[in-house]
This record gives sequence, structure tokens and C-alpha cells, in this order.
Amino acid sequence: MAIPTAPGLVLSPTAQVADDVVFGANVVVHGDTVIGAGVIVQDGVVLGKPPRLSARSASAAPVDGPLVIEAGASICAQAIVFAGARIGAGVIIGDQAYVRERTAVGAGSVVGRGACVDNDVVIGERVRLQSQVYVTAFSVVEDDVFVGPCAMTTNDNTMGRQHAGDELGGATLRRACRIGGGAILTPGIEVGEEAYVAAGSVVTNDVPPRGVVIGVPGRVVRYVGEDDLLESERG
Amino acid sequence: MAIPTAPGLVLSPTAQVADDVVFGANVVVHGDTVIGAGVIVQDGVVLGKPPRLSARSASAAPVDGPLVIEAGASICAQAIVFAGARIGAGVIIGDQAYVRERTAVGAGSVVGRGACVDNDVVIGERVRLQSQVYVTAFSVVEDDVFVGPCAMTTNDNTMGRQHAGDELGGATLRRACRIGGGAILTPGIEVGEEAYVAAGSVVTNDVPPRGVVIGVPGRVVRYVGEDDLLESERG
Amino acid sequence: MAIPTAPGLVLSPTAQVADDVVFGANVVVHGDTVIGAGVIVQDGVVLGKPPRLSARSASAAPVDGPLVIEAGASICAQAIVFAGARIGAGVIIGDQAYVRERTAVGAGSVVGRGACVDNDVVIGERVRLQSQVYVTAFSVVEDDVFVGPCAMTTNDNTMGRQHAGDELGGATLRRACRIGGGAILTPGIEVGEEAYVAAGSVVTNDVPPRGVVIGVPGRVVRYVGEDDLLESERG
Repeated sequence: MAIPTAPGLVLSPTAQVADDVVFGANVVVHGDTVIGAGVIVQDGVVLGKPPRLSARSASAAPVDGPLVIEAGASICAQAIVFAGARIGAGVIIGDQAYVRERTAVGAGSVVGRGACVDNDVVIGERVRLQSQVYVTAFSVVEDDVFVGPCAMTTNDNTMGRQHAGDELGGATLRRACRIGGGAILTPGIEVGEEAYVAAGSVVTNDVPPRGVVIGVPGRVVRYVGEDDLLESERG
Repeated sequence: MAIPTAPGLVLSPTAQVADDVVFGANVVVHGDTVIGAGVIVQDGVVLGKPPRLSARSASAAPVDGPLVIEAGASICAQAIVFAGARIGAGVIIGDQAYVRERTAVGAGSVVGRGACVDNDVVIGERVRLQSQVYVTAFSVVEDDVFVGPCAMTTNDNTMGRQHAGDELGGATLRRACRIGGGAILTPGIEVGEEAYVAAGSVVTNDVPPRGVVIGVPGRVVRYVGEDDLLESERG
Repeated sequence: MAIPTAPGLVLSPTAQVADDVVFGANVVVHGDTVIGAGVIVQDGVVLGKPPRLSARSASAAPVDGPLVIEAGASICAQAIVFAGARIGAGVIIGDQAYVRERTAVGAGSVVGRGACVDNDVVIGERVRLQSQVYVTAFSVVEDDVFVGPCAMTTNDNTMGRQHAGDELGGATLRRACRIGGGAILTPGIEVGEEAYVAAGSVVTNDVPPRGVVIGVPGRVVRYVGEDDLLESERG
């Protein structure tokens, strides 16, 4: 490969960078990071950062392989993406956003400005996480999910007092569900396919497919109509 | 103009920088950015960044002109301000904050640490947006408004399923209203002059002038008294 | 001391840096910052930043001395820590986090990714502030407190209209209390020892020791049992 150049670029000698990758200024690339064709890496981005764990962290598994960024993805200014993450084709990781180890982001998805996706999360394709969203560790976010700005998830009812054998329960957001801005999901919640959680709801029970949830605590008030399903939108 | 120098400064050759601008380390200035007299630009700031848009983004209008930063403004560490934004005289853009294209911030206003002001927003004078506030696209924030920490706005009831002709509805915050910390405004809400939204409220209806709103959903419980109006404070 | 080197390091000539400190790339160290043995400072960190205050800021006291980082602490990527702060032994300041002047963080505590601790805050030992938490100025957080992701505090019921003599009232979080994700505390709230605030609660009254608070507004629904106390966990 050609040796890429950009102002202030600090590039690990073992990184693999496609010839046409475009770097902004002051980018740092660690370890064995793999950057595919046509990827854009903007100013101040940190790629392949190894985790710095608290001794009491729930994220103790080893990092499994390097950061891989697939073709055509964009990593926007000041974002941090860890070693062991996988960023799919055409993904946009927004400015000042954050993606941790062993997390995969599927093709065509967007992680909004300042959003945080913690470790061990699986994000599908065409997912949109808006600005400042927080996705907790061990969550699953299926294809075509929309999460509004500042919405957040939790995974630990004990708040740091797990006993041996307790498991953390991230959120499960099924295909094409929509989570409103500022919504809060308590640990282990599953939101069904095509469900709709209104802005500002606090969701304390699983939401059935197509359920429309509003309030604190959130209650199902109706169901998403046929004409508001994603397939209808696409038709 | 003199050629500015600072450690790690990456300065576009077409930027216009007043002679007395002070740069921190590792600042990146893109394009035709105009920086006025007495402006302070701190460590790690990115100025004049061109938007990197999703193909499905609601922010598809062209960027209209360069970033302009007027005299005496301060852009604090690691902030990002886009091409096409206008930052008024004496404004403080806080550390790690974020201001997008076609957004104007009026003289003497403060955008707090980590706050996000999306595209096409008009912010008046002497506005204070506290830490981590989120102002959605197409919002209007008039003079002397106060927005508490982590308060947020939304602009899309469909959550990404707009039909042709649907418009996004940002928030309208009238003169001298106050929005409490962590408050959530559903799309298209107007908060009247001198109104007061308590911390943690979820505002689902317009708020009348001087209305005091509390709760989820927010309800008007009384009106702001004469002695608590901004003019009284100044008197 | 040896002169430390790292790519893009901008080091104040009056900083004091222990011989074995490890710097990432593009770190900026201001003023008289003191960095102890074994400290790790990751990519893009800004240390010892002097405050940039609004003329109307409530943080007008002088900065009292330099930033001091004690042995074995880690300052993670893109974090900003101000002059006048004190970071205890073994503390982890997370990626993109933010700690202001005259704030002390006790030994073994963790400030999560993107979290903000404003000025004049005292944080005890073994405290865990999760991602995106906001701790307002003049708060006290005692030992072994847990604050879930995106939880926040406020300190000003007037929202910027204090009269002469009014004092700001930060939060007081007593030993080993737990604050759930997304919870909101109104100004001046005290949460008692070993109390438990559920995720998404809006806390408008003081919480008694061991009180379990849920809802909007938060109400005490029961008390933490003996077997769920921190001492039991440790036993």
C-alpha cells in the first residue's frame, strides 16, 4: 500500500490502510486497524484504541482482533472507535461519537454526534442513532431501528452490586422499532418490531410488536397502524 | 494579515484570520473561515468543517458561505463549528460543544460544554445553553433564553418516516423563557415569553407566555410573577 | 526529570511530570500541572486548561493552584481536566470526559465516558459516574456512590436569575447511594446513605437513608434491605 500522509497523522506501522482512504488532521491509528477502500477519517479521530478498564468493569473479555472499518464508511471529527469493533460498509460514525470493543455496526447505519455505543453491542443495518444517544453494553439493535436524540438504555438493576452469576441485561430493540428522544429504558427491556416509544417515556416493561408506548412509566396506548409500518413507507 | 502560528495549527490558506487571534494547540481551520479580532480558539478546535451527510439526512440544503466568527468570541477546547455557521461577537462556544451549518448564535450567548446545536437554528443574544443541551434542527431560540443542563428538543414525530411534504418542526423558545435541566420538548413546541419549564418536565403542548409548567406530561400550574420577570431582574 | 516525548506533545515548561508517565499522541499540558508516577495520559487529552468564564458565570473564584494528578491515574482519550482540579490515585477519567477547576476526585473513582463534573465538586473514593453523567457545580459525592448513565443534577432554581446573596445548591449524594440512569435531581437535593433512586426518576425532595425512590416526581416506595447494603456486598 501507499504510505498515507496528512498533517499530524500518527499511524501504527501494522495498520492496513486502503490506498484511497482520506485522512483529516491529527488522526491517531493504533495497532492492527484495518481501513477499507474509500473510507473517510476526519480531524482528530482516534482509531483502534485499546480499552482502559476499571478493575471492576463488566467489560473484562479480551479484545478479539483489530478494529475493522469496511469500505465507504465515514468516521467523523473527534470520534473514537476501539480495537475489536467492526464498522460496516457505508456507516457514518458521527462527530465526537464513541464505539467500544466487540461492537459491530451494520452497513449503512449512522451513529449520531456524541453518541456512545458501549462494548459487546450488535447493531444492524440502516439503523439511525441520533445525537447523544447512549447504548449500553450487551444490547442488540436490529435493522432499521431509529433511536431519537439523547435516548438511553441501562443494563444493571443492581447499579454495580452484581453477585456472582448475575448477568447484565442490555436493551433488545427489534427490527424497525422507534425510540423517541430522551426515552429511558430500564435494564433488559425488549422493544418489539415496529413498536413506537414516545419521546420522554420511561420504559419499564417489554413493549409488544407495533405497541405505541407513552408516559412514565410507559404504557401501551395503541398499536402502530398498517400505513405507518416501515414497509408501507418503502412501498 | 500576519501568518498565525501555534503548535500543530492546520490553517486553510483561504481562511481570514485577524492579527490578534489566539490559537491553542492542534487547531484545524478549514475553507474560507473568517475569524474576527480578539477571538480565542482553544486546543483541538475544528473550525469550518464541511457537513458529512447521510444520504437520508434532513439537512440537505447547500452550505451557504463560510464559517464567520465575530470579534471577541471564544471557541473552547475540542469544540467543532461547521462551515456556514455564524458566531456572534463575544459568544462563548464551550469545550467539546458542537454547532452545525446555517446556524447563527447571537452576540453574548453561551453554548455550554458538550452542547449540540444542529443545523438551521437561530439563537438570539445573551442566550445561555447549559452543558450537554441538545437543540434540534430548525429551532428558534430568542434573546435571553436559558436552557438548563441536558435539556433537549426533538423535531420529528415520525422518527425518520416523513412523507413528501412533511416538515420538521424544531422548538421555538420565545424571549427570556427558561427551560429546566433535563426537560424534553416534543416536536414543534413553542414556549412563550418569560415562561418557566421545571426540570425534568416533558412538554407536549405549547406553553403560554409566563406559564410555569411542571410534570410529565407538563401542565401549566401557575404564571411567573411580575417580580420574577427578566426586566425586574435587570431593574 | 527526563523530558517526555510523544507525537504532537505540547508540554508546558513548568509542568512536573514523573519519569514513567505514558503519553498518547497530541496531548496538551498547560501551566504548572503535576503528573504523578505511573499516570497514563491518552491521545488528545488537554490538561491544566485555565477556565474561560462567562462574565455572568457562577464560577468566579480564582483557580487555586495547578492541576494535580496522583499516582496511577489514567486520563483517557480526549478528556479535558482543568487547572485547579485534583485527580486522586488510581482514578480513571474516561474518554471525552470533563473535570473542572477546584474539583477533587478521590482515589479509585471512575468518571465515565463523556461525563462532566463541573467546578467546586468534591467526589469521594471508589465513586462510579457512568457515561454522560452531569454533576453540577458545588455538589458533594461521597465514597462508594454509583451514578448511572446520563443521570444529571441541577443547582439553580432561578435558572440564571439569582439575586445577591442567593446561593447555588448542588447535589449532595451520601455514602454508597445509587442514582439510576437518566435520573434528574432538582437543585439542592440530598440523597441519603445507601439510598436507591430508580432509573428515570425526577427527584424533587430529599431522599432518606436507604430510601428507594421511583417515579416523577420521585416517591419513597420502600427501603433498601440489609442484604442489599454495600457492606453486605463486601462481606
